[in-house]
Amino acid sequence: MVSEEDLSVAAMHRIIKKAGAERVSESGAKELARVLEEIGLKIGKDALEFSMYAGRKQSKEKTLRSRQRNS
Amino acid sequence: MVSEEDLSVAAMHRIIKKAGAERVSESGAKELARVLEEIGLKIGKDALEFSMYAGRKQSKEKTLRSRQRNS
Repeated sequence: MVSEEDLSVAAMHRIIKKAGAERVSESGAKELARVLEEIGLKIGKDALEFSMYAGRKQSKEKTLRSRQRNS
Repeated sequence: MVSEEDLSVAAMHRIIKKAGAERVSESGAKELARVLEEIGLKIGKDALEFSMYAGRKQSKEKTLRSRQRNS
């Protein structure tokens, strides 16, 4: 479970507006935060499995980048 | 282009650690921010298209939720 403070609702508003939206509902911004946190957690877990398989304890850039396609 | 301040690197560290990682490299956290911002922008644009098709100017929760599967 990812807590609400991980991704700020203000950041979600900015991203959705950057996507071209004129207005964003508060619950819409919260929903995007929930979705992105879920995806981030999935990518993180996937990258961790790969790192451990490679005998590393650290989640590195290349592993996180390579795992985005599968999430 | 999404600017760096949209998603905090600290939040990425928390998410990756929540995924179980013992250690997270700085560039790894930045990479996750880049990936999630990209996905967020994609979901936002997709949701906007749907909202406009429905004659709405606001990106709402249900639209953002329904578009996550396609991003």
